[in-house]
Amino acid sequence: MNYDAFFADKLDQLRAEGNYRVFAELERDATDAPHATMHGADKARPVTVWCSNDYLGMGKSAFVRQAVADAALQDGAGAGGTRNISGTATQHVALEAELADLHGKEAALLFTSGYVSNWASLSTLGALLPGCTILSDEMNHASMIEGIRHSRADKVIWKHNDPEDLNRKLEALPKGGARLIAFESVYSMDGDIAPIAEILDVAEAHGAMTYLDEVHAVGLYGPQGGGIAESEGLAHRVSLIEGTLGKAFGVMGGYIAGSAVMCDFVRSFASGFIFTTALPPALAAGALTSIRHLRRSDLERRRQQANVAKLRTRLDAMRLPHLDNPSHIVPVMVGDPFKAKFLSDTLLEQHGIYVQPINYPTVPKGTERLRITPSPLHTDADIDRLVGALSDLWSQCALNRAVA
Amino acid sequence: MNYDAFFADKLDQLRAEGNYRVFAELERDATDAPHATMHGADKARPVTVWCSNDYLGMGKSAFVRQAVADAALQDGAGAGGTRNISGTATQHVALEAELADLHGKEAALLFTSGYVSNWASLSTLGALLPGCTILSDEMNHASMIEGIRHSRADKVIWKHNDPEDLNRKLEALPKGGARLIAFESVYSMDGDIAPIAEILDVAEAHGAMTYLDEVHAVGLYGPQGGGIAESEGLAHRVSLIEGTLGKAFGVMGGYIAGSAVMCDFVRSFASGFIFTTALPPALAAGALTSIRHLRRSDLERRRQQANVAKLRTRLDAMRLPHLDNPSHIVPVMVGDPFKAKFLSDTLLEQHGIYVQPINYPTVPKGTERLRITPSPLHTDADIDRLVGALSDLWSQCALNRAVA
Repeated sequence: MNYDAFFADKLDQLRAEGNYRVFAELERDATDAPHATMHGADKARPVTVWCSNDYLGMGKSAFVRQAVADAALQDGAGAGGTRNISGTATQHVALEAELADLHGKEAALLFTSGYVSNWASLSTLGALLPGCTILSDEMNHASMIEGIRHSRADKVIWKHNDPEDLNRKLEALPKGGARLIAFESVYSMDGDIAPIAEILDVAEAHGAMTYLDEVHAVGLYGPQGGGIAESEGLAHRVSLIEGTLGKAFGVMGGYIAGSAVMCDFVRSFASGFIFTTALPPALAAGALTSIRHLRRSDLERRRQQANVAKLRTRLDAMRLPHLDNPSHIVPVMVGDPFKAKFLSDTLLEQHGIYVQPINYPTVPKGTERLRITPSPLHTDADIDRLVGALSDLWSQCALNRAVA
Repeated sequence: MNYDAFFADKLDQLRAEGNYRVFAELERDATDAPHATMHGADKARPVTVWCSNDYLGMGKSAFVRQAVADAALQDGAGAGGTRNISGTATQHVALEAELADLHGKEAALLFTSGYVSNWASLSTLGALLPGCTILSDEMNHASMIEGIRHSRADKVIWKHNDPEDLNRKLEALPKGGARLIAFESVYSMDGDIAPIAEILDVAEAHGAMTYLDEVHAVGLYGPQGGGIAESEGLAHRVSLIEGTLGKAFGVMGGYIAGSAVMCDFVRSFASGFIFTTALPPALAAGALTSIRHLRRSDLERRRQQANVAKLRTRLDAMRLPHLDNPSHIVPVMVGDPFKAKFLSDTLLEQHGIYVQPINYPTVPKGTERLRITPSPLHTDADIDRLVGALSDLWSQCALNRAVA
């Protein structure tokens, strides 16, 4: 068998479908964010980044960068081992205590990424809880789906954000065995938010554990940035809250928070936690600084929310269609993969605006979009230039405007 | 069902078996490595770390720490997105080019950890190569085992480091379909090294792809630190070389290197690559500095090898039994889980020496050990204190000495 010919053929298929990805290479100066320099095959050009998940610009803030730099100089560049074999630093211990406190839980457990925290936790819980059935919202993230698949537990998919369907699915299960309900608070692509209280009501009625992914919410919602569960006063009713240090907190890494014995159980049995080098203490120090800041300060959240509102108002004024949702994610709907790609390319080439098109399979066909994430760092002038450019291109592409 | 009671019960079982892990919390001053301060429940004490996988002390070197700090200050604390959505920085592109060049391959692809690189690559290749059978060395690392399991490809286990058994297993397979041979160069727990040339002979005779994990070898072996395959002049015959940035290179992250289309294929189809926030550019910058240094300088490798030889000579002089192997890993064999734990505890409490005991299931029962990793940073005095303390404890525990 010719392996390289097989790989080349599969890549050609991706190209033919318009799904082949070319990465945009960014050279960044943190003090100039959200502006950066993009390096292409031909030339370098200045861009404004409109699709970062460093939602609050914390990764660019002087004190978070300084905390990483100071800890790297003091402690070293890496952890040097797994958590069990010389890889646990004071920064990890302090960060886990801070995360537990942020969510009002007994304990927290760090992972190398949010992806790994979902994959490792769900695969371990699903595999080891006796007779476990995992009930998974149909829109859950790839990392949750892969973790559930890896666990080989029974899996039941329930309709997106539909507690009644969840209830029906639970009632249809045979008696006995563990039940784990896995869902997200803010869904990344549509920016919609789960009815957490109703889901918890259903879970409690059935004696089910709840697993809530708050990666697009931690740092952003709640008086201290504890996420949607905090903002709705529901965190104490959720069995396990999963979060990331790589989006609003601006660094890297993932975690779970919950009861002490549950975190200790995952710590003790999850292959993806045990057999991997720990997060560099410098990153833990940076995340700790970022979290502590966002627990005290809501300036960043208020500025971000104001920019989100401003962008929506300007889009509405130009009748540019965007999904209405209660979150910070602004999906501008195009509805065609080639036009989405053309809009993205032209925004870049003619206007120096960088926003990645989101096509199938990440979103359903016919709902192709530009996913825009306003941050506190964007200025009114940035917003005006974005909306002006979009409006010009909307006419150029003969795309439908929203009904006034 | 009472979930917390279930978790508590499983943890009690671990405790009863002697397999419950308590992490040692280290406070480190990079300029004082391999010395650190260990924080316990009762007090803090100075320790010498003898079980780090920062094998060459690169994570503690001034220029690697400075590279991380400088890039964090310049670029930011995190990548802010997946590689596809605003998360690709110039540092990632430069590091992938450097890694490809290090291994004499067309391309390389970064992952957030070595664990993820194995899991994501093997699960993707195994799932998508038509009719794939993965032939896996029986001693392969957990991350490879989990990746193979996740792929749901047919799996055949061959005897550790036994090319003849591999050949028999390949001959017994039905005709047709892809074959992927997965193995490591240096095995972490015994420190033995695979007969790579013979394995490649077998692979080539059967038209199989080869997947070689060099995580305990990159930076350490070969004129430029390209690993065992480089040192034996075999890298060009290996289809895929997997490595880590978190051990000898002293930072964090994992990678694969191979043909351009193979790396592009994994880049395009691996969930664990696509749907995760990229490595912070600051870590990529640190790893790049470390790799470039170790391609020019063999001072660190020579010092480490001299310390490994010194330690072995002193252990032999005291007739302290250790596994003979051609690598930098020195397993001092105890052969009893409770004595291994007692030795580790007493070394710490009475001598300020930190070396983690390695028990079942990480190693087979009856082969419990202290896994010692001498670095270029350990002094002759450090080695003398270690061997003196071990010899005292050997008498105290009435452990067998090696035959003279």
